[in-house]
Amino acid sequence: MFDLYIANKNYSSWSLRPWVLLKALEIPFNEHLMPFEGGLGESYATFTRFSPSGLVPCLVDSKGDAGSEVAVWDSLAIVEYLAELYPEVWPQERMARAWARCASAEMHSGFSVLRDECSMNCGVRVALNTLSDGLKNNLARLDALWQEGLERFGGPFLAGKQFTAVDAFYAPVAFRVQTFNLPLSEASLGYVQHLLEEPAMEEWYQAALAETWREPMHEQDALKNATLLNDYRAV
Amino acid sequence: MFDLYIANKNYSSWSLRPWVLLKALEIPFNEHLMPFEGGLGESYATFTRFSPSGLVPCLVDSKGDAGSEVAVWDSLAIVEYLAELYPEVWPQERMARAWARCASAEMHSGFSVLRDECSMNCGVRVALNTLSDGLKNNLARLDALWQEGLERFGGPFLAGKQFTAVDAFYAPVAFRVQTFNLPLSEASLGYVQHLLEEPAMEEWYQAALAETWREPMHEQDALKNATLLNDYRAV
Ligand SMILES: N[C@@H](CCC(=O)N[C@@H](CS)C(=O)NCC(=O)O)C(=O)O
Ligand SMILES: N[C@@H](CCC(=O)N[C@@H](CS)C(=O)NCC(=O)O)C(=O)O
Repeated sequence: MFDLYIANKNYSSWSLRPWVLLKALEIPFNEHLMPFEGGLGESYATFTRFSPSGLVPCLVDSKGDAGSEVAVWDSLAIVEYLAELYPEVWPQERMARAWARCASAEMHSGFSVLRDECSMNCGVRVALNTLSDGLKNNLARLDALWQEGLERFGGPFLAGKQFTAVDAFYAPVAFRVQTFNLPLSEASLGYVQHLLEEPAMEEWYQAALAETWREPMHEQDALKNATLLNDYRAV
Repeated sequence: MFDLYIANKNYSSWSLRPWVLLKALEIPFNEHLMPFEGGLGESYATFTRFSPSGLVPCLVDSKGDAGSEVAVWDSLAIVEYLAELYPEVWPQERMARAWARCASAEMHSGFSVLRDECSMNCGVRVALNTLSDGLKNNLARLDALWQEGLERFGGPFLAGKQFTAVDAFYAPVAFRVQTFNLPLSEASLGYVQHLLEEPAMEEWYQAALAETWREPMHEQDALKNATLLNDYRAV
């Protein structure tokens, strides 16, 4: 059985990736939500109880290692671990799979301006005060990448007809586009809309809105270069 | 046939990963070295001719897609692309493979302070002026991670007796430890030494020393918080 450790649904973009993949593929798992305990690094003591890196997400497979438990502690490694057991995690066609892995690994190590300037906060809507050059570059790359995938594999998902891991890797971006009202091409906005309407995404979003934790660092992060327009979260 | 596009061996840490993996596993490829054309982003116009993201490394498989060429443009995606063709890319045992993927993906998206403050510059030796808290944290995590791998799988490589992709992912760290004389545990320093003595690492290092390009941004990066002690590069 799988145990998936995640943090706040409203904030934790890395947690969303394996969660939404497991849900979309209907792979059963137990969810363990561990709210952040403060600013960067302050959850370390708690998170290291289940995750060697002190970071979430972490997937614990209770039957992993000859019947004893194994911790898989990084979102991309979780995807590959699952892919060995569930081939539908990646596209079935080899070239689509290669493309999907490139796009996912590029997200894993890149798009740092987007991540930094548009921190995930599902429940709010804000207006960016300025659009930095770095952010413009990231959005241009996003448009080009998504367009390539949608055209080459025919949509509506990035690598074809099915939701696969590459969509899970860009799922946090869909919430960011919604929160920050990011300017993207029509095709990209259509893809964002399609992702947001996925039942698994809708389920995460509703749970994020219902959360009443507020973590100051994450709250400030989303507003450091933006003006608050709406907050749809429960109080 | 594989064509691997890389940048300067002295500087390009991401390029080193697939290069050293291909060499260590004796997988044939054509190397295309494209020197950086200036600071961050200035090589974009040239690099996009072969790499969709404008970044190196990029592996081009001339027989990839039903006989036509395919570009695999991220170091971790290159590893997974190769692993489908050459299973020895990852450890053969499933749990060692899960661990190796976690450690590689953690490197791919993490260790940002180490990367930023100890930029790869193979040919020089410097003394760090100060050891920041962020760097100390990164080094502590590195020690813990390496120790876990070396103990659990018995060494001398991170996931056992063979050089696999996880060693390729930490290969740039070995050069950084050498350049910046980073304080690590004895076990970790032993592993670094072992990596540096690998024939493929030695070959990369000698080629890096022979390079006469100097790119100001990369030169300054390595010295922004350090004092130059030695420069072993050709002039
Ligand atoms: N490479 C990791 C990164 C995970 C990560 O950075 N997680 C954040 C939360 S989204 C975390 O656990 N932070 C701990 C903290 O802020 O204390 C992965 O992909 O899983
Ligand atoms: N996620 C990519 C990152 C590659 C990357 O950042 N490459 C750097 C060189 S080491 C680059 O191409 N920079 C282009 C430039 O500086 O113009 C990978 O793993 O391959």
